[in-house]
Amino acid sequence: MTTAAETVNVSTGNLEQSLTALFGDLGMTQDNARQCASDMVLTNLWGIDSHGVLRLPIYVQRLEANVIKANPDIVTRDGRSSFEVMDGDGGMGYVVGHHAMKRAIELARQNGIGAVAVRNSNHYGAAALYAQQATQAGLIGISMTNVKPNLVVPGGSKPITGNNPLAFGAPTNRGFPLMLDISMSAVAGGKLLLASEKGEKIPLDWATDRNGRPTDDPDAGFEGFLLPLGGHKGFGLSLMIDILCGIISGGAHQFDIKSMYGAPDATSETGHMMIAIDPTIAMDESEFLDRMDAFYRTIKSSPMWDATKKMYIPGEIENETRLARQRDGIPLTVSLLAEVNEILQRYQISPLLPAV
Amino acid sequence: MTTAAETVNVSTGNLEQSLTALFGDLGMTQDNARQCASDMVLTNLWGIDSHGVLRLPIYVQRLEANVIKANPDIVTRDGRSSFEVMDGDGGMGYVVGHHAMKRAIELARQNGIGAVAVRNSNHYGAAALYAQQATQAGLIGISMTNVKPNLVVPGGSKPITGNNPLAFGAPTNRGFPLMLDISMSAVAGGKLLLASEKGEKIPLDWATDRNGRPTDDPDAGFEGFLLPLGGHKGFGLSLMIDILCGIISGGAHQFDIKSMYGAPDATSETGHMMIAIDPTIAMDESEFLDRMDAFYRTIKSSPMWDATKKMYIPGEIENETRLARQRDGIPLTVSLLAEVNEILQRYQISPLLPAV
Repeated sequence: MTTAAETVNVSTGNLEQSLTALFGDLGMTQDNARQCASDMVLTNLWGIDSHGVLRLPIYVQRLEANVIKANPDIVTRDGRSSFEVMDGDGGMGYVVGHHAMKRAIELARQNGIGAVAVRNSNHYGAAALYAQQATQAGLIGISMTNVKPNLVVPGGSKPITGNNPLAFGAPTNRGFPLMLDISMSAVAGGKLLLASEKGEKIPLDWATDRNGRPTDDPDAGFEGFLLPLGGHKGFGLSLMIDILCGIISGGAHQFDIKSMYGAPDATSETGHMMIAIDPTIAMDESEFLDRMDAFYRTIKSSPMWDATKKMYIPGEIENETRLARQRDGIPLTVSLLAEVNEILQRYQISPLLPAV
Repeated sequence: MTTAAETVNVSTGNLEQSLTALFGDLGMTQDNARQCASDMVLTNLWGIDSHGVLRLPIYVQRLEANVIKANPDIVTRDGRSSFEVMDGDGGMGYVVGHHAMKRAIELARQNGIGAVAVRNSNHYGAAALYAQQATQAGLIGISMTNVKPNLVVPGGSKPITGNNPLAFGAPTNRGFPLMLDISMSAVAGGKLLLASEKGEKIPLDWATDRNGRPTDDPDAGFEGFLLPLGGHKGFGLSLMIDILCGIISGGAHQFDIKSMYGAPDATSETGHMMIAIDPTIAMDESEFLDRMDAFYRTIKSSPMWDATKKMYIPGEIENETRLARQRDGIPLTVSLLAEVNEILQRYQISPLLPAV
């Protein structure tokens, strides 16, 4: 017997084909459907299970209601040489995000650096997807998005800024990029649940109770609010990202951004900022990759006081997880698998099967 | 009677004139001398007393030894449209940094965004100085620099990356910019000293002992190493900054960067990255400033559970400190004042006098 928290592994190919068919049936062009499916699968391959397939039900609900446009008419509204501003037409965030980074990459190839700010988009999944788009083109990529305020600043009694994520990726010659993907909260909510399960207290700088007061009780924290990474440091970085994604794009910022869960029937008006930088201005590509390799080896050579631990560069654990899951399949909880299969059934698509 | 830790206030004008004269006597052009003096004074006006005049003795030592070039011949080595790479010629960091941001501003005005990576520079003081240079031109500014590794990553037994600071500034219509200036350590070393003085323990994610093991003893932490902001998050941001400042500039990175204290007789080979972004691509300047004002007011309107506290945007406390110190003078410890006056005396410059 399985419980709802137990997982079943599903093969990458099975999942990607089913999602591509589903997004097609939801009205997407073949290109858009493939993009969304492969983004969601890649996110789970990396082990970022807080995104990926977990978000399928809300995406489907919003696509069915035409709240998210399956094939948005993304338009460049303004621009000057290396920096353009786009309107995402309330489109699926994956489609809008890749469209914007594609243009930032073109601008970087022409001009050394390229930036595209986007307004009027929706949830775009893991920020790393777009930074990786740049690294696959041989460029450095930076991707950011704003979200509805969900962080309390120390001393405040209600959330005042979002945990606005940022990803940074740089190419390497190791088969995977250096890839940082972080949000501006001290920790993710999942860490509070974990502490609660273990019966542990949490540090006072992780979360607050419902009134904004710092708490060491993970349950009170889960009912309350998260605090920013390093207090004023994460708070400031969060504001930086909202200014770059929301203010200068001419789009929504702060409380004008909507949550797809809190306001499922409205465009989220999410903003993004995509920056691509050509690392070969002062050197050729092979020299750049050699320098990145020296950089990587210096970090990996760090002596560890705890011999059971290894030093990882950002993105390295995600790459190891990807290789393991490509071999063994992607673990989905029994309850999520049932939910996905119920959706697939409605569209007469074969259910996902456990990987052999 | 005064002790060495007590402070004496010195007037802004007195300090700035004396430093300008001193840098002139150390061989700087009038422009360079004025720039360095006003940078150092502004840093102290902001209350960033860990930089500013505190660093004068080492700067003077290095300028006297011709280790830092007073009037560097800064050269653009490579470039493509919006992104240029400069060699700082081992010059004074303030001079090199402003030269690079000046060019980034020109590039942003032409192209919407401009970036300048710099190699072969030296300590450039507070990162905010260069972000503010951009905000004074009506642009968004981002400034970063790399430093010799001084942060231990959790599990490691020696420092492996620098606390590489980053500043972000955006113009406002309030007489001061939104200005974030942070380093990538969880806290500054001064916080450990403060906890030690108060006899308090420190959180386990602030610092390690000399072997890299996390400690809650502030004295052991002060003898050991600092940990990155939020563990892997600050570690990744630190790597991002070193890649942008050190790798793609063709300059030094990681252990090839030198500390001006640890290696006073060598160019530090510091790298910088300056980015300027024109916020008026999708709107005119007054609309942008109106949007920034709405942004500011939303943050300021946050209800506080602790009525004795106020919500500040980044840069606001520094602005209040600036106004107070312009009125009352800049506090220097008695020991620092004596050290500065000893230097001034060697150059036959009148000693600094207590502000009236």
